[in-house]
Amino acid sequence: MKALVYHGPGKKSLDERPMPELAAPTDAIVKMTRTTICGTDLHILKGDVPSCEPGRILGHEGVGIVHRVGQAVSGLAVGDHVLVSCISSCGQCDYCRRGMYSHCATGGWILGNRIDGTQAEYVRIPHAQTSLYRIPPGADEAALVMLSDILPTGFECGVLNGKVQPGSTVAIVGAGPIGLASLLTAQFYTPAQLIMIDQDPNRLEIAQRFGATACIDARDGDAVAQVMKLTGSVGVDCAIEAVGVPATFELCEALVAPGGVIANIGVHGVKADLFLDKLWDRNVAITTRLVDTSSTPMLLKTVHAGRLDPRKLITHRFRLGDALEAYDTFSRAADTHALKVLIEID
Amino acid sequence: MKALVYHGPGKKSLDERPMPELAAPTDAIVKMTRTTICGTDLHILKGDVPSCEPGRILGHEGVGIVHRVGQAVSGLAVGDHVLVSCISSCGQCDYCRRGMYSHCATGGWILGNRIDGTQAEYVRIPHAQTSLYRIPPGADEAALVMLSDILPTGFECGVLNGKVQPGSTVAIVGAGPIGLASLLTAQFYTPAQLIMIDQDPNRLEIAQRFGATACIDARDGDAVAQVMKLTGSVGVDCAIEAVGVPATFELCEALVAPGGVIANIGVHGVKADLFLDKLWDRNVAITTRLVDTSSTPMLLKTVHAGRLDPRKLITHRFRLGDALEAYDTFSRAADTHALKVLIEID
Amino acid sequence: MKALVYHGPGKKSLDERPMPELAAPTDAIVKMTRTTICGTDLHILKGDVPSCEPGRILGHEGVGIVHRVGQAVSGLAVGDHVLVSCISSCGQCDYCRRGMYSHCATGGWILGNRIDGTQAEYVRIPHAQTSLYRIPPGADEAALVMLSDILPTGFECGVLNGKVQPGSTVAIVGAGPIGLASLLTAQFYTPAQLIMIDQDPNRLEIAQRFGATACIDARDGDAVAQVMKLTGSVGVDCAIEAVGVPATFELCEALVAPGGVIANIGVHGVKADLFLDKLWDRNVAITTRLVDTSSTPMLLKTVHAGRLDPRKLITHRFRLGDALEAYDTFSRAADTHALKVLIEID
Amino acid sequence: MKALVYHGPGKKSLDERPMPELAAPTDAIVKMTRTTICGTDLHILKGDVPSCEPGRILGHEGVGIVHRVGQAVSGLAVGDHVLVSCISSCGQCDYCRRGMYSHCATGGWILGNRIDGTQAEYVRIPHAQTSLYRIPPGADEAALVMLSDILPTGFECGVLNGKVQPGSTVAIVGAGPIGLASLLTAQFYTPAQLIMIDQDPNRLEIAQRFGATACIDARDGDAVAQVMKLTGSVGVDCAIEAVGVPATFELCEALVAPGGVIANIGVHGVKADLFLDKLWDRNVAITTRLVDTSSTPMLLKTVHAGRLDPRKLITHRFRLGDALEAYDTFSRAADTHALKVLIEID
Repeated sequence: MKALVYHGPGKKSLDERPMPELAAPTDAIVKMTRTTICGTDLHILKGDVPSCEPGRILGHEGVGIVHRVGQAVSGLAVGDHVLVSCISSCGQCDYCRRGMYSHCATGGWILGNRIDGTQAEYVRIPHAQTSLYRIPPGADEAALVMLSDILPTGFECGVLNGKVQPGSTVAIVGAGPIGLASLLTAQFYTPAQLIMIDQDPNRLEIAQRFGATACIDARDGDAVAQVMKLTGSVGVDCAIEAVGVPATFELCEALVAPGGVIANIGVHGVKADLFLDKLWDRNVAITTRLVDTSSTPMLLKTVHAGRLDPRKLITHRFRLGDALEAYDTFSRAADTHALKVLIEID
Repeated sequence: MKALVYHGPGKKSLDERPMPELAAPTDAIVKMTRTTICGTDLHILKGDVPSCEPGRILGHEGVGIVHRVGQAVSGLAVGDHVLVSCISSCGQCDYCRRGMYSHCATGGWILGNRIDGTQAEYVRIPHAQTSLYRIPPGADEAALVMLSDILPTGFECGVLNGKVQPGSTVAIVGAGPIGLASLLTAQFYTPAQLIMIDQDPNRLEIAQRFGATACIDARDGDAVAQVMKLTGSVGVDCAIEAVGVPATFELCEALVAPGGVIANIGVHGVKADLFLDKLWDRNVAITTRLVDTSSTPMLLKTVHAGRLDPRKLITHRFRLGDALEAYDTFSRAADTHALKVLIEID
Repeated sequence: MKALVYHGPGKKSLDERPMPELAAPTDAIVKMTRTTICGTDLHILKGDVPSCEPGRILGHEGVGIVHRVGQAVSGLAVGDHVLVSCISSCGQCDYCRRGMYSHCATGGWILGNRIDGTQAEYVRIPHAQTSLYRIPPGADEAALVMLSDILPTGFECGVLNGKVQPGSTVAIVGAGPIGLASLLTAQFYTPAQLIMIDQDPNRLEIAQRFGATACIDARDGDAVAQVMKLTGSVGVDCAIEAVGVPATFELCEALVAPGGVIANIGVHGVKADLFLDKLWDRNVAITTRLVDTSSTPMLLKTVHAGRLDPRKLITHRFRLGDALEAYDTFSRAADTHALKVLIEID
Repeated sequence: MKALVYHGPGKKSLDERPMPELAAPTDAIVKMTRTTICGTDLHILKGDVPSCEPGRILGHEGVGIVHRVGQAVSGLAVGDHVLVSCISSCGQCDYCRRGMYSHCATGGWILGNRIDGTQAEYVRIPHAQTSLYRIPPGADEAALVMLSDILPTGFECGVLNGKVQPGSTVAIVGAGPIGLASLLTAQFYTPAQLIMIDQDPNRLEIAQRFGATACIDARDGDAVAQVMKLTGSVGVDCAIEAVGVPATFELCEALVAPGGVIANIGVHGVKADLFLDKLWDRNVAITTRLVDTSSTPMLLKTVHAGRLDPRKLITHRFRLGDALEAYDTFSRAADTHALKVLIEID
């Protein structure tokens, strides 16, 4: 079968690989029909993710059709259309029973990282019963690819952790796909203000279209002053960090109101400064989270009910044979204006 | 009347001062019968608290007897024995209605800071109705002095923010009066482990007596390893920072388990390093808080019910005339083994 | 001044009454500009509310202009436009400090009940600082009359208590003004289904326009079957009772899914049957609540942000001189299709 | 093997039965070493539980040793000592993922009800991985039998649902084994008052020994008056119903304070009266729950940490060969003063 394979920092190719096989009675094999590329895949290609070794098939997102199921899997049958969660979870270990699937003792983010992933014609999914979600007939399956990772990530790490509530003021730092996923799902809770901060005018324009109540171009250098003006000099109830560098995290520290939350989503490679001298008496919370995808059933319901349209995050479409071009388009997002690139497989 | 007055960095004296008077219909004048000294008072004397100007009577803790009440105060009468909260709160501004009394628009920590405090024969208490608590007859009033500040602080900033629960593992970094207040009130929730970390063997011995399940001498240099050993290499569900320097905060970052909380109590003068590169995917929360004293009614109930004995925090007793000696004893705690020093007034 | 006065069961008239005066330093006198009539006013007129004695000016809703303020009131000045809360609260008693303003020791629902109310040219408001809300310039003041009672009631007693969440299924039994207020504010949380049940086709049609995803005519007699069909035979996550008779409450018992909530809003005059033999193992919660109006600041923010349009609840407008006609229109809602009737005062 | 078998209303015997076998790859076979009898077993024998058919081996509690494991079970090995949960749960269905194991699509309370139970030498446990808990070496295994059902039931349905908090006032109606389990575990949260109400002086005496702060003999007929006296005429924050008849539930309605919770544990056979005319404006919650045993890991930790001693609930010990005598002793608890009867198996 065809698969997009990582061959060490900076190196990837579209290779022919053997079909995956069931390795445990709780596994399933899924024939992928659509996948996509994540910012994390680019991190791997930079060599930033040592757990991902050369030879690995990349990808942890997508939808497909159940091809084989292990004998201990119930609730899934060959031919079922399924959404692949970026997080594999057994549902049974201590962390899973607390809903922290991200830290599953035998799962977590392993797809396209510790085991072969979804940018291929077939993929083996461990703990299939709790890592795949049946798609009802008639669903827009391309749209659902957005539910593998970025929508639950934006929602859980940003919106839920950030305790967005009706009437809240929210600032989202970073208008990339993840920040926009937070922007879309923050609207589940009807905040009064949704302020988007980024350096890319194109992305800010998209944010405006997606429901931001104010957009701030970070290059102006006065983001803090602008947010203070918008919030009566108080700051925001919730600051969502969706970039992953010290400067944007520290910006969040300056934006958060007393009693507010900084919800970190960004993948950080270095430490940041925590200004406890300013924050110790501000009654704030700072949260971190690797997505648990515990909200996936709820997100499926809201999409099904027409309350969320994930399709608007898809800007480009490719076929698996053109996966290298898809990577090129996605990695040059500032030029190509790519958000998410859909890769169709047949 | 006699009062302990701050005269600028390093300078204090016991002076004769005029009696305070009612300044607003919501004020009360309280004749103090007992007060104490807080670590924050020492901070002021070092010149670290610019909001506290020379000439200020220090102190934000104590019990006394209502001497006069403004005409808009209900529920309090002359002669009532009362506990003074270290936080003054109107009960009516936006922050107060959210229970964040620490950020009351016209209150907060003002006693012995922005207005004259409790280390005196009389004190004016603004927003008396929500800043004083009636003491039932027969109560141990010396013990209740511990409810002005350190017990709500240890409880709210450490235990409540730290989400201590039955079966939790808890590490408290710092076994001073505040850390010990957390230790005592953490036991309200029956955690499985209460690990105390400090550099002072005397304080660790007290911690043991107060209910710690393990004590670690930080001077051994292997606190992290010891905690990991005690917790099956997972870390603690809750790490409480009760010192206020970068090293102890960063120790908490190393101790906290995935899904856990770092509850900061310490008053920090400088920034700390936040190792987001290690924490971004650990699903942790970090909280800060200036005490709200919203738990004071509950703490009074638990003392009244015999579930908490605050008296054990009092190690020394002085009279107001010997307040300078009380300060000396309290500030040399390593030598004197002082926890809280009670100052009696008549 | 002119005022609508209750004279015992079945009797009311528009009388000339003396101007109210400040009775406590925490009072304010408000010159009313708009008020409305509540279902509870009709209950009083039926003689169902013994705490309301003959001679009482009715009404607990409205907006106006501050005419006089007591000397202990801060944050309010003569000339301020204000929203009157149906609940008077001191902000300082034990219940108020828990956010249960409905049970304020010296407040609660007293306006137009235990003390004279708002269907008059002027009204005395006790605990003015926490019972009045300043209206920003340029607001639609007629719309804000809906924030005195029905919107916080529908939201707090129905939506908040009912734990409506993104993706939830919700059934609201009763499409009167309160049920519709729940319908509008439930949408703050983006539920997947909002099923409205009533016997009046006109009200169901309004519900459809206000965002219901399904409407069930209770006269068909198969409401339970229809809800089960809509919810995959599971029942609803949240059943909101907005009528106040045993039959509608018992319908909610039949509609609620395992793990769900029955949130009662209705004012009940008699007991209902609780089928514990069916519910004991269903992991449900049943809640009751007199509105606390603790959500009023949030509701003001959502209206200001354009997220909620309360004006759509107003179907008729009268002047105070025509108050008897307003009562007639409101009390014959099935014929007049009245939701809320606005009474303008000058 | 020997097993206690239900043969229809009023009939049971100790029979010879074939050994159970693995039926699914997720099953385990456990060699029981200790079991006990539950009030629900007596309900079955009265014919009150139609889902339990004649021929069924009774029992849903106990500890044992893993004898065989299905090939899809991980984390459990032959020879492991295990606690059997009264609730079987797959960990993977929608209800399980919400922590509502009681409603597991393919589990719930099935042991000794829909499938053969634990009052036997061997038992088949479906969903073994999430329905068995490994017991650490050196544990008091007799004590742990109390963690199969009554301690999680008393804790989850009574204490957790009842939101017992430090300083709370709690009334528990019914001092049988379940009520006493609530009494023991309520103390995890340090309530100020724990009032026990029962008709049996012996059980009240035990309650006193187990930590009740007040005991009320329900036969005196003035339980409401006594509770009001103990609570300053307010009622209790939490009323726990641990009997299961209308009279005791309705007593809870009379005891609960505004803002409080009635947590039902009792298994009810008929409806009760819900006095909504008195409760609609009292801001109360009423909860029901079949135990989820989601707290079992926590309970194991508290027992291991010496914070809870379940052994004190065991009053009698028998061998499996004397199981009929054990039933007799347990069913005549008023005479025999039995709480839990331990049945040892070898």
